[in-house]
Amino acid sequence: MKAIQHQELVTPALLIRAEAMARNRQRMTQAMSKFPSVSLRPHMKAHKCGPLALLQVADGALGVCAATVDEVYVAASAGVKDILLSNELATLAAVKRFVKIAAEFSQAKLRICVDSVGLIRLLKEAGAAAVNVGVLIEVDVGHHRCGCHPDQVVALAQAISEAGLSFDGIQCYQGKLQHIRDRDARRDAVMASAVAVAKLSKQKLLDAGIECNIVTGGGTGTFTVEAGSGVFTEVQPGSYLFMDVDYGKNPDTPFESSLFVLATIISIDSTRSWAVIDAGHKAVTMDSGPPAVVGHAETVQYTSGGDEHGILSTGNVGDLPVEFEVGKQLWLVPGHCDPTVNLYSTVHVMTEDGKSE
Amino acid sequence: MKAIQHQELVTPALLIRAEAMARNRQRMTQAMSKFPSVSLRPHMKAHKCGPLALLQVADGALGVCAATVDEVYVAASAGVKDILLSNELATLAAVKRFVKIAAEFSQAKLRICVDSVGLIRLLKEAGAAAVNVGVLIEVDVGHHRCGCHPDQVVALAQAISEAGLSFDGIQCYQGKLQHIRDRDARRDAVMASAVAVAKLSKQKLLDAGIECNIVTGGGTGTFTVEAGSGVFTEVQPGSYLFMDVDYGKNPDTPFESSLFVLATIISIDSTRSWAVIDAGHKAVTMDSGPPAVVGHAETVQYTSGGDEHGILSTGNVGDLPVEFEVGKQLWLVPGHCDPTVNLYSTVHVMTEDGKSE
Repeated sequence: MKAIQHQELVTPALLIRAEAMARNRQRMTQAMSKFPSVSLRPHMKAHKCGPLALLQVADGALGVCAATVDEVYVAASAGVKDILLSNELATLAAVKRFVKIAAEFSQAKLRICVDSVGLIRLLKEAGAAAVNVGVLIEVDVGHHRCGCHPDQVVALAQAISEAGLSFDGIQCYQGKLQHIRDRDARRDAVMASAVAVAKLSKQKLLDAGIECNIVTGGGTGTFTVEAGSGVFTEVQPGSYLFMDVDYGKNPDTPFESSLFVLATIISIDSTRSWAVIDAGHKAVTMDSGPPAVVGHAETVQYTSGGDEHGILSTGNVGDLPVEFEVGKQLWLVPGHCDPTVNLYSTVHVMTEDGKSE
Repeated sequence: MKAIQHQELVTPALLIRAEAMARNRQRMTQAMSKFPSVSLRPHMKAHKCGPLALLQVADGALGVCAATVDEVYVAASAGVKDILLSNELATLAAVKRFVKIAAEFSQAKLRICVDSVGLIRLLKEAGAAAVNVGVLIEVDVGHHRCGCHPDQVVALAQAISEAGLSFDGIQCYQGKLQHIRDRDARRDAVMASAVAVAKLSKQKLLDAGIECNIVTGGGTGTFTVEAGSGVFTEVQPGSYLFMDVDYGKNPDTPFESSLFVLATIISIDSTRSWAVIDAGHKAVTMDSGPPAVVGHAETVQYTSGGDEHGILSTGNVGDLPVEFEVGKQLWLVPGHCDPTVNLYSTVHVMTEDGKSE
């Protein structure tokens, strides 16, 4: 821990504003307090960071979701006691690594999602039962990505039990719904897909005499809908810690930006029509739209200048803000926080009076 | 060094096929042999890897280009003796770090690009002259990114000398020209922009009595044009080592794909209309188009499934290739090699009979 000023950083650099992140954590605690029977299981794919996972557990989270075996390892190493790999694995090498982590961190409860018998067989072959791995069935609730059809849930649950594994419940997550801008339309879509399919799938299990203890899903844009549905037992928001331009377009969000890419203007053209910053494809992602420049979000557009450069312009000749000079540092709000965090090996946590790494 | 099979890797993983990369190196040596008075200075922003930089020097490269101060450090640490930071810095913190590297690796010649007096002042303040840093002026040859106007070259060269620094030449690079598909149109564009502006800028310097020893630029798509121009003294291709889908669309390229992302099918929908692989935004970039699936480049399209997933489909219901099964590993050719490499901390170099990490 060393307090340094952001001016001392070689940019592009990834920074968290500590006070803003703390406010987001408080807002999440407050939001979840309305659903006392539903647990918070934040998705660590947003931050990939053991200390932040521990902060979330300290806030009252049951544990975390992870998207990769590496993230499971990071969470287990940090001391998180309940970790859901909210995705499928499909090779024996990957499943063995997951089971090895479960064996190494036996004080942690590890769970994994399956949507076909193939992974159930791999889990059996890798000895998952002996290390107390729990299994959830992922159901396709409309994203058409991973997940089985609700009609397959009972057979898969039976296959899990026959393999000597513990069937713990279902995952019903739909990423695309998180970003429907209108609150009512978003709620209706969640009720019609994630909630309806979760209810249907759970009922099929109950009808077959199979317990379904966990129903998990929901993200930063929708978690209050899932939490209030009466069927979900836990929710998986991750982006709420940081937020981004894309989530910021949901008008009803209570969360604020706490994650920034610090960039520096390295060149300005002689007509003052555009400025070049040192943040290109390797520093910010464009998959959910460009980053926003703090203080100029309405007027200055970011366009890609390639791997290492971003181009800032208002679109008008000679119309660059007067304070834009070579050497000026700018704060960018990432278009999409998760893949932007993924570009960095270090994040700097900054308090209002300085900064600690 | 441990020989393991690719089946043992937890995917997504980045791999180099050693024999293909060796062929690309030979093709580059052969191509450059036609221009005995022009040096090869490969751009290491493509690979960011000290051992690969050393291979390129062993092939006869003068040294390397770097895009960031981190890359300069990697190259200097590996033992590269001639390193050009082919970009501008704009803060004292960054320039001090660059100068510190020059001091630490005094056997290496470090150079940097400038396009305004601001950076010249910072270099002076950071003591760049004492550590023998060389300075090039970057000229905007039409990309409209960094680079000064040719009319500014003489004044900047004088400012460099007045600051006690060594003015070594000019950089004239235009990234967009690399991907003009038609060979003749590409050559004409390079001649009309990079070559013409380089000639003009050099002439302005000579007319002012200023020597201009280095003229550098060119990339994998155009380097033979710059090398044959009579004005460029060195060329900067980087992607030739690996290639990618984007560069592969240049019909006259002599280079082949040697870089791959290994991914695994983790889910297939029940109608066999799409397969889900474990390579999303965090494993492949889309900035120059999607990756191609080896063996299915003509028929199977990759679309993003979000941070962790890619969706493979022919676009027709039930038309998935018969060999696509959960657990099958697929080789993807990245759409754009540089930002894809940037997503990984490890690259596995694989020979035909096994693999060495």
